[in-house]
Amino acid sequence: MDMDVYCSKGSIGTFNSVDVDGTITKGGYSSYIVVHQRYCFRIPNDYPLAAAAPLLCAGITVYSPMMRHKMNQPGKSLGVIGLGGLGHLAVKFGKAFGLSVTVFSTSVTKKDEALNKLGADKFVISSDEEQMKAMVNSLNFIIDTASGDHPFDLYMKLLKTGGTLVLVGVPSEVKLNPINLIMGMKSISGSATGGTKERQEMLDFCAAQKIYPEIEIIPIEYINEALERLIKGDVKYRFVIDIENSLK
Amino acid sequence: MDMDVYCSKGSIGTFNSVDVDGTITKGGYSSYIVVHQRYCFRIPNDYPLAAAAPLLCAGITVYSPMMRHKMNQPGKSLGVIGLGGLGHLAVKFGKAFGLSVTVFSTSVTKKDEALNKLGADKFVISSDEEQMKAMVNSLNFIIDTASGDHPFDLYMKLLKTGGTLVLVGVPSEVKLNPINLIMGMKSISGSATGGTKERQEMLDFCAAQKIYPEIEIIPIEYINEALERLIKGDVKYRFVIDIENSLK
Repeated sequence: MDMDVYCSKGSIGTFNSVDVDGTITKGGYSSYIVVHQRYCFRIPNDYPLAAAAPLLCAGITVYSPMMRHKMNQPGKSLGVIGLGGLGHLAVKFGKAFGLSVTVFSTSVTKKDEALNKLGADKFVISSDEEQMKAMVNSLNFIIDTASGDHPFDLYMKLLKTGGTLVLVGVPSEVKLNPINLIMGMKSISGSATGGTKERQEMLDFCAAQKIYPEIEIIPIEYINEALERLIKGDVKYRFVIDIENSLK
Repeated sequence: MDMDVYCSKGSIGTFNSVDVDGTITKGGYSSYIVVHQRYCFRIPNDYPLAAAAPLLCAGITVYSPMMRHKMNQPGKSLGVIGLGGLGHLAVKFGKAFGLSVTVFSTSVTKKDEALNKLGADKFVISSDEEQMKAMVNSLNFIIDTASGDHPFDLYMKLLKTGGTLVLVGVPSEVKLNPINLIMGMKSISGSATGGTKERQEMLDFCAAQKIYPEIEIIPIEYINEALERLIKGDVKYRFVIDIENSLK
């Protein structure tokens, strides 16, 4: 099924993993790299190379479960928890699928961007009880990108009957009242990046739909400053290192 | 979709609920009862009435999620946690669907019955670390009927990639490490009884497949003793009250 990442024998990480030939993987931050054709993807001709980069990790991480859980049904409703690298792409995919998209964030500073730049339909401050209450029983799907701890019971109540919350962030634990799964036959599902076949499918979909991640291109010399800004959440929404024009 | 039990306006309980006309529902322990045709089911001609009784609650509670999650795929593997009214029917349905069925129980006294009477393929004492370890990454589905608290992480590890645990029991909380959902795109899903259409479908399926719940028929005069035995778990697996022959 081309889902190597879930191989029961384990998968090989891009960076600092032991490869099948015993060598250590050194990642993609290099001028040249030799890759098995199985892991090569065709970037559509008119698609900017720099924009393609985040699709191959953040993009596929939300695209894969969105397709698996059949979220590409126009007219249905999607909640996106957290507006970062993963979240902003979930919003863009959601809109391309014809969904009504609500962004849940702890930070009101993201409201204007969510609604006016990314095209979300609603923006909810997740700590605001009134706003959360108004969303009860209104969503078919939730993509949860938050890695900080957050109350799952609150979000499960926002799902309609048969709704699914897909966890792609990694909080310290998942804890909820079983009643919030049982009453309404709801599900929590996890997902980690995705398969090779669907990666190509996603790239082609993004080119056709003109979906581009929001990025800031940096030379590799800027990497320490970029890491400091990353920790502060000061990036919209992914740094992309321009290897070709770095260290010339 | 004939799933009244999940109606967003709420559902009406059989016992001691307020009906749409304002009257209090009095349940089914009566000689005569008037029911809307929507809630009438045809018991197949050759099917014993007493055996049909537990199907309409315990039976549908496991049948509904088993069908929804496409467990009727011969050759796949099912774990059943807990061997009571719900669990023993999950085993019977699982075998009728052509699944390899493993029963997880805390009590070794149920082993012989699980394997030799109900037809399960394996029996695992869930507190036995070695036996649990041997089951890692081996199950497509788990039906979890346990209402006592139990460690979800342990069971999630037994699922294969893409596997689903369906919760039909009601423990005090669901708590697990998100990694056990994410690595392997696994799901936890809840379910409560089922719909009207699938109830009839299940009755017809049970008649065709000769699936009968294990029951002990009692007169209503025995009800207090039955309740005491129920609390001790001393019933295989459901009491059925014979109203017609009671209080004559």
